[in-house]
Amino acid sequence: MDFDLIKQVAVPGDSKIVLLVMDGLGGLPHPETGLTELEAARTPNLDQIAREGMCGLSVPVALGITPGSGPGHLALFGYDPIKYDIGRGVLEALGIDFDLQASDVAARGNFCTVDSNNVITDRRAGRMATELNEKLCEKLRTILIPGVDVFVESVRDYRFVLVLRGEGLSGRLSGTDPQREGMAPLPVTALAPQAERAVSLINDFIEQARSLLREGQPANMVLLRGFAQLPDIPPMADVFKMKPGAVAYYPMYRGLAKLVGMTALPANAKLEESFSVVAENYERFDFFFVHYKPADSAGEDGDFDRKVAALEAADAAIPELMALNPDVVMIAGDHSTPATYVAHSWHPVPFALWGKWCRKDDAQGFNERECQRGALGTFQATEALPMAMAHAGRFIKYGA
Amino acid sequence: MDFDLIKQVAVPGDSKIVLLVMDGLGGLPHPETGLTELEAARTPNLDQIAREGMCGLSVPVALGITPGSGPGHLALFGYDPIKYDIGRGVLEALGIDFDLQASDVAARGNFCTVDSNNVITDRRAGRMATELNEKLCEKLRTILIPGVDVFVESVRDYRFVLVLRGEGLSGRLSGTDPQREGMAPLPVTALAPQAERAVSLINDFIEQARSLLREGQPANMVLLRGFAQLPDIPPMADVFKMKPGAVAYYPMYRGLAKLVGMTALPANAKLEESFSVVAENYERFDFFFVHYKPADSAGEDGDFDRKVAALEAADAAIPELMALNPDVVMIAGDHSTPATYVAHSWHPVPFALWGKWCRKDDAQGFNERECQRGALGTFQATEALPMAMAHAGRFIKYGA
Repeated sequence: MDFDLIKQVAVPGDSKIVLLVMDGLGGLPHPETGLTELEAARTPNLDQIAREGMCGLSVPVALGITPGSGPGHLALFGYDPIKYDIGRGVLEALGIDFDLQASDVAARGNFCTVDSNNVITDRRAGRMATELNEKLCEKLRTILIPGVDVFVESVRDYRFVLVLRGEGLSGRLSGTDPQREGMAPLPVTALAPQAERAVSLINDFIEQARSLLREGQPANMVLLRGFAQLPDIPPMADVFKMKPGAVAYYPMYRGLAKLVGMTALPANAKLEESFSVVAENYERFDFFFVHYKPADSAGEDGDFDRKVAALEAADAAIPELMALNPDVVMIAGDHSTPATYVAHSWHPVPFALWGKWCRKDDAQGFNERECQRGALGTFQATEALPMAMAHAGRFIKYGA
Repeated sequence: MDFDLIKQVAVPGDSKIVLLVMDGLGGLPHPETGLTELEAARTPNLDQIAREGMCGLSVPVALGITPGSGPGHLALFGYDPIKYDIGRGVLEALGIDFDLQASDVAARGNFCTVDSNNVITDRRAGRMATELNEKLCEKLRTILIPGVDVFVESVRDYRFVLVLRGEGLSGRLSGTDPQREGMAPLPVTALAPQAERAVSLINDFIEQARSLLREGQPANMVLLRGFAQLPDIPPMADVFKMKPGAVAYYPMYRGLAKLVGMTALPANAKLEESFSVVAENYERFDFFFVHYKPADSAGEDGDFDRKVAALEAADAAIPELMALNPDVVMIAGDHSTPATYVAHSWHPVPFALWGKWCRKDDAQGFNERECQRGALGTFQATEALPMAMAHAGRFIKYGA
């Protein structure tokens, strides 16, 4: 929705809104039972929310588009995930809690293997161990580039983050990873005139890295891609006039929340304890984003039963949320991760909005089939937060 | 929908379309019965239209946005209510049948009370009587401002309309009403460079008003807000190639109809008689907008039973409409006004489209729940008129 419109109608208030994001929530039927993960799971509390509230299927980006975690969350935060594009480098930096600054340029790095002709023989350096990664990152931190600070941060396995910090840098750069083996790494090129300076700094980094890593096994070279800077994104406080707090255990989701101006609260992986954090901070904030990861992890592993169990575990924590007596609750997912698909997918995601001004609909439980019968139909995920604001009495009338 | 597209496909014709707007149509369940106003009402004629036609829930502006009467009607007339923004001053002028000209600047005025330090003590001057209002307006009409004509028109209670008429004026002005007591009235400021001249003219008006009202009780000052000019809006005849007539008893709705180029026909408050007016003018026009107010009034008063009765009274008049044998009928609302919410709300509005080319859907009656089951789902209200045009055979094929 148009932020100009939202700014015209949004007003501060005391009402409380809770957004529970169950990562990878949506699923597909198990081939033997014909039931999706949510249909197979026993979720009496979520079902009650669905019966009392309004349901639908949310589309994070567009029909047919499989979102990454960045776009999936931004949409639920009310931000157009196409307009506010979060580069891969920024997402990687957020994912390790790196404190990215406004003019930093971040890139996703791979340690890789090249042969004596500089042809890539393994883009992931044999999926090398994280300990070796950490050693190599230490080595790369010795690289000096005049005029900028260089940060090389280990992520995991063969992955690291490169950050250049200095004045007047631009992230409008092409990557060096050809995305396949049998080719040489590509040269970095400027995608905009203002990025010329960054090109030479990064080529300098790459040549120094090549020298430092030359004798290494299996990693003797780096690939860089997803050069990016923090997007220029208006904080939720300005657009929605709210005080938002985030309870997310994993750094990437905390980072996404901080991108839109949420305050990151301490969290651990258990949903009950996340709701305790909400309870402890209930007076400080009027909007809470709570992130729950296990459903996605199980889906990504193709483990149908574990995803069912993760959904049941989440359901068991719901009474602690409802005991807080929030004005509006949203049960949502950033995307579907069907266990049978073993990856993120484009399928619209079950969604329920609960609050006292809900017009009840035909949805009799919380799953793909029932949510499709709901009043919201198949809708853009960016519309979820504006609806929640309306139901929380936080939007005044538009026009006379 | 894009007007360029509509202009390409719209053609004149003899078919007749009737749009019945039941103001504030949508509702919410009564806490005791679980039935909405429409579900509680006995509406056999509307139910038949819903069964024979196609139903849905219309969204006047956007999900979560509560529309005023202006945006709610413009959307049903096919106009994007965000693009065609109707200022408060213009709407107030339309509401008293003031014949606003293209370059006029109109503002909503309040008579208010200030203390000896010019601090507002009552923004509504004790909700003063309309007779006093009329006397004070007469007094303010003595104000002379070089180069412009000044109109001061009483509305009701403490409300009046100020209109300045002259060449080269702009309504891009901030208001003087701080929207709360305990502050002095704000100075008028220009929101665009071309409004500088209007600023000095209006400040001149305000100072003269202050002198004239100084000794008054309880009203000794004015507040002005919602400065606006008529929007630049293409007439329905140009966009939709139609001859539209409006049957609306209340001036504001007649004014909104005239804004888009409808001819205002004489009307009184009864729906049967409104349909008689349609009948009398049936050959002169091919599109009729008929406005029915009582459902909204009852909703705004929080009177569930009166809203039910208003809906039943409307239903009883429907046979007179259908006896005209129109090609396409739309039963719509400009917004919801649930009696339990005691105000306009953001909830999507029941809608039915009736005509011989309708593909029947699952809706078995005319209410929120059944309309949600309809073929149109939850849809933008601006799409209603294009659909009606298609069903009336008034859109040719797009593209070869």
